[in-house]
Amino acid sequence: MNLEIYLTGKVKTKFILEGVEQYLKWIRPYHKIKITSFPLAGSTSANRDQIKKKEGERYLKALQNEKNVVVLHERGEELSSMEFATFIKKWQNSGTRKLIFIIGGPLGFSDNVLSQNWKKLSLSRMTFTHEMALLVLLEQLYRAETINRGMIYHY
Amino acid sequence: MNLEIYLTGKVKTKFILEGVEQYLKWIRPYHKIKITSFPLAGSTSANRDQIKKKEGERYLKALQNEKNVVVLHERGEELSSMEFATFIKKWQNSGTRKLIFIIGGPLGFSDNVLSQNWKKLSLSRMTFTHEMALLVLLEQLYRAETINRGMIYHY
Repeated sequence: MNLEIYLTGKVKTKFILEGVEQYLKWIRPYHKIKITSFPLAGSTSANRDQIKKKEGERYLKALQNEKNVVVLHERGEELSSMEFATFIKKWQNSGTRKLIFIIGGPLGFSDNVLSQNWKKLSLSRMTFTHEMALLVLLEQLYRAETINRGMIYHY
Repeated sequence: MNLEIYLTGKVKTKFILEGVEQYLKWIRPYHKIKITSFPLAGSTSANRDQIKKKEGERYLKALQNEKNVVVLHERGEELSSMEFATFIKKWQNSGTRKLIFIIGGPLGFSDNVLSQNWKKLSLSRMTFTHEMALLVLLEQLYRAETINRGMIYHY
């Protein structure tokens, strides 16, 4: 399956970049995976709603013809790692060729994104930086693969 | 406040070590913080209950005279980052000098740990490696500090 991840905000923290590289390396034998990060649409002290809306429009433009989009959002459905593995397997078994995950910027998602008919999942009730959310998502994607393939990793 | 974190399993992955260092540096102006990691009590393919029990006894021995212990466990209470900040502030306001967090090893906690009268919190319904749990906990401890001090970090 082709996995694509879109997020707002640069991925620039050194340890995060190293962690992302590690998980991409681990995942790539099983999936094609691409990460696209949009720049922030303004400094977070300016008009937040305008910034969020502008940032939201980028996702809508990039994903206008996409069906299989999963929004990572604090108030989305929370899955255990086993349930997430089943979630991924269902997409695969249904013949889905591309599955897209989107992570919000520091200000989160705008209403124009949240109102889309896209599945919403939550990695945690806690707020993560966009970089930490990316790291945790990649680890869970790898973990899901090990679960679905019966590899020793998840206990 | 003195924060102590106990976990089972080495912290050895390079990017995790770098991330832990970063957050320790950010937290130390506000709290003393110490991380103690116990070695695994056996290879995870051996008798798991025995390993978990042995690993559990280490926590019980190290914490026998401690009152303020928080167990990080998937089925613990889930807090938002704001609620976690309030949780930390309550401990501080009550004059607590030391607050201890414990993270399980790959096999998780034994019954002898889970049956202790200790608060249980969950970072996520998903399973994290002990290293990722440490990283996420440290980021949330720093985030809680910024929230409680009105610093610009958490949105």
